[in-house]
Amino acid sequence: MNYGIIIKVLGSLLLIESVAFIPPLLISLVYGEKSFLAFIYSILILIVLGFPMSRVNILSKRVKAKDALLIVSLGWVFVSFFGSLPYVFSGSIPSLVDAFFETVSGFTTTGSSILGDIEILPKGILFWRSFTIWLGGMGILALTLAIFPAIGVGGYQIFKAETTGPIAEKIVPRIKDTAKILYVIYAGLTIIQVVLLWAGGMTFFESLIHTFSTVGTGGFSSRNTSIGAYNNSFIVYVISIFMILCGINFSLFYDLLKGRWKNVLMNSELRLYLGVITVSTLLITFNLYGKVYNSIFETFKHALFQVSSIITTTGFTTVDFNKWPEFSKSILFLLMFVGGCAGSTGGGIKVIRLLIMGKVVKKEILKLLHPKAFVPIKINDKVLSLDTIISVSSFFFLYMVIFIISTVFISLEGVDLLSSASAVATTLGNIGPGFELVGPTQNFGFFSTPSKILFSLLMLLGRLELYTFFLFFVPDFWKNN
Amino acid sequence: MNYGIIIKVLGSLLLIESVAFIPPLLISLVYGEKSFLAFIYSILILIVLGFPMSRVNILSKRVKAKDALLIVSLGWVFVSFFGSLPYVFSGSIPSLVDAFFETVSGFTTTGSSILGDIEILPKGILFWRSFTIWLGGMGILALTLAIFPAIGVGGYQIFKAETTGPIAEKIVPRIKDTAKILYVIYAGLTIIQVVLLWAGGMTFFESLIHTFSTVGTGGFSSRNTSIGAYNNSFIVYVISIFMILCGINFSLFYDLLKGRWKNVLMNSELRLYLGVITVSTLLITFNLYGKVYNSIFETFKHALFQVSSIITTTGFTTVDFNKWPEFSKSILFLLMFVGGCAGSTGGGIKVIRLLIMGKVVKKEILKLLHPKAFVPIKINDKVLSLDTIISVSSFFFLYMVIFIISTVFISLEGVDLLSSASAVATTLGNIGPGFELVGPTQNFGFFSTPSKILFSLLMLLGRLELYTFFLFFVPDFWKNN
Repeated sequence: MNYGIIIKVLGSLLLIESVAFIPPLLISLVYGEKSFLAFIYSILILIVLGFPMSRVNILSKRVKAKDALLIVSLGWVFVSFFGSLPYVFSGSIPSLVDAFFETVSGFTTTGSSILGDIEILPKGILFWRSFTIWLGGMGILALTLAIFPAIGVGGYQIFKAETTGPIAEKIVPRIKDTAKILYVIYAGLTIIQVVLLWAGGMTFFESLIHTFSTVGTGGFSSRNTSIGAYNNSFIVYVISIFMILCGINFSLFYDLLKGRWKNVLMNSELRLYLGVITVSTLLITFNLYGKVYNSIFETFKHALFQVSSIITTTGFTTVDFNKWPEFSKSILFLLMFVGGCAGSTGGGIKVIRLLIMGKVVKKEILKLLHPKAFVPIKINDKVLSLDTIISVSSFFFLYMVIFIISTVFISLEGVDLLSSASAVATTLGNIGPGFELVGPTQNFGFFSTPSKILFSLLMLLGRLELYTFFLFFVPDFWKNN
Repeated sequence: MNYGIIIKVLGSLLLIESVAFIPPLLISLVYGEKSFLAFIYSILILIVLGFPMSRVNILSKRVKAKDALLIVSLGWVFVSFFGSLPYVFSGSIPSLVDAFFETVSGFTTTGSSILGDIEILPKGILFWRSFTIWLGGMGILALTLAIFPAIGVGGYQIFKAETTGPIAEKIVPRIKDTAKILYVIYAGLTIIQVVLLWAGGMTFFESLIHTFSTVGTGGFSSRNTSIGAYNNSFIVYVISIFMILCGINFSLFYDLLKGRWKNVLMNSELRLYLGVITVSTLLITFNLYGKVYNSIFETFKHALFQVSSIITTTGFTTVDFNKWPEFSKSILFLLMFVGGCAGSTGGGIKVIRLLIMGKVVKKEILKLLHPKAFVPIKINDKVLSLDTIISVSSFFFLYMVIFIISTVFISLEGVDLLSSASAVATTLGNIGPGFELVGPTQNFGFFSTPSKILFSLLMLLGRLELYTFFLFFVPDFWKNN
């Protein structure tokens, strides 16, 4: 293990986080809130810890796979832990476990909350809460890589661990450049959405909050009733569209900018993703129309918003979908196991994994007819290796096992199965709300400390796509060879 | 397609079914029930149809994979359809859809019922109901193969389609002999259990009913409260043990008879199966003790019984586990996705598939550390081919997809998600009872006709391990080449 470089990268990460505290600090000062002190203390702590760490002498620049994986895992735990300090110092969330949950929920772009009343929070804290989503959306270590090129060694492993989906695509040959391009696209989407929401009637502050939460597909709002607080169809549609956009593989935006239209139009993951959104929206519209809403436009608007919100794993709500008929609820529950596209800020299983598994199943059925035929599996005209197929299937299996076993643990709280199952699905999938006791009008505050820690772990597992954290349980990992 | 041989085998199957009507006919006569006429009519219909079919001229003895698969699929639908005639003719279940559901539930060894009051049924009908489980347990086509050796062509495909688990093992080189050995073991277990239950205080008739339902892991009882009707610990333990035995790969019994102890003791699927039963029983005992039952012996007895009943997919109950605490309920729900061992009469996903997937996941985690290492996956010292691994993972995926999509369909009935999800899980896994509206004290009678047909299909899909029926949707299947 190259401990030198691990400490150095973690130190740089803390320094970047201390810089990330400056915008919410400024907001606190602008609004004259006492909570600015919470950010100052947090910044001081991060600098005192991070500066010497980032200056540590490294003996070797060689970063092995295990070093990179340790950097990523510890990195996410570190930023979440130190990111919770402003909540504690400002008294907004006095319990450290609760504050940790909320910070993990932000960085992992989940958007589940332990808070009952959000509107009483200081503006600086509200800003930090949504800003964690924005920072986590593209990967905080990718950001570090883009800013500190010196530690770009072993960068591919780090990039791969943070990138979503089964295959880590480098848009351009160098990781550092890829990270920069992705951040430029991300910033571009952010600016456009802020302008649109502002123009649509939100205050500038609220536009920022909701844009961060949309482009990071996280879903923290500044209002207790989420987007339901805005009786404004324009805002609802803008957020729906941006949620859908941010659930798309960001490399397709790069293709678009480069004029490679065909790549985009023929992308089979994108087609399936848009297909699922369309079919689900229509089914829910059909199910709700006349029963829950009398206007077909109202019905469609809420259906599209909720479908986009769940499939992209954002988690905003316009209405309490927990009160919808069972059919619509079960479609939403199903979407919790779909997730966004690979390479997007969305969480979950990812559309491409379902696409690959669907093709594997089709191949198996055909094999019954022609037992000796060999049919390769292709995605976007590229043949997938058996290794990739096995990776994808084992990912799916592990996902379901974690889901089921965690649900059993949470059911120890004595809550009904639907509450516990959806609480696990929504945290593991980095979504936000679930059903029943963790429905849109509820929160995770009532769970016991062990459950909150389990949920925090599930959010991290989901964000880093399961495998990274399991390494710590492999004895081989700790051997020095 | 070799239609000649398909018609011939189906005809023989109907003749065997007509013979299978004789025992319940005799029971009706012994008890002086009018329902004996229902069996006579059914026998006549089967002979009139089956005899000419079985005598059809076959042009070629060649049976291709697709012929065998068509034989198996149509075979199961045929016996289920004609097997429902006695219910309809006797007036016990007037609706054909309901009678079909009940018969499919029997032959697939599910044990879900549409009947509210079982105890008012004539004894002949009760006997037939449990006898379908006994017949379905080992595969009705395997029985046909064992009896009509002339149609043993293409036998391996048929055997494979009916046998449970990812790898169809022939105990001895010839399929016909393998089928015979399995039936002898099956009959042996049946006789021993009948004697034990009879000695334990059941009437001879009830011993037969409950033995058929145990060794076939089906779970139809002659009492409304299932095994709860017997306030007799001996009976409860005998049934628990026989459920566990019948969830074991039957080839291990053959090994035992041949004195190959090591094969049995070192079998990794068996170890995991017994391990899951032990851990689940202890967890539930711990959860229930002092809360639901005051005696530790009572608690353990019910916990062991219910765990064995669900994991082996039998579905007997001693108590209404729907009233147990959420933790115990969620463990039972989890067990619905485990199932028995491959090559047993139990349904579900099967322990060996979970074992294989567990090893695949472990390999994937290690691959993060040593990206270039090749680690083969072994089960009982045999290396698995990548093909088998992909088959197993796609089975698991398809199982979850069918489960989730069917749950969405059933939720159209407006029942709560737990009821619909557990109703689907219990039929697809060939288990029997679910939770809430389909809990141990409830039944499937209230569902609409389309839902009942879907449940019947799910039971057949589960019994034939998913793939067989999907072939009908492959255009290639219907092409003559």
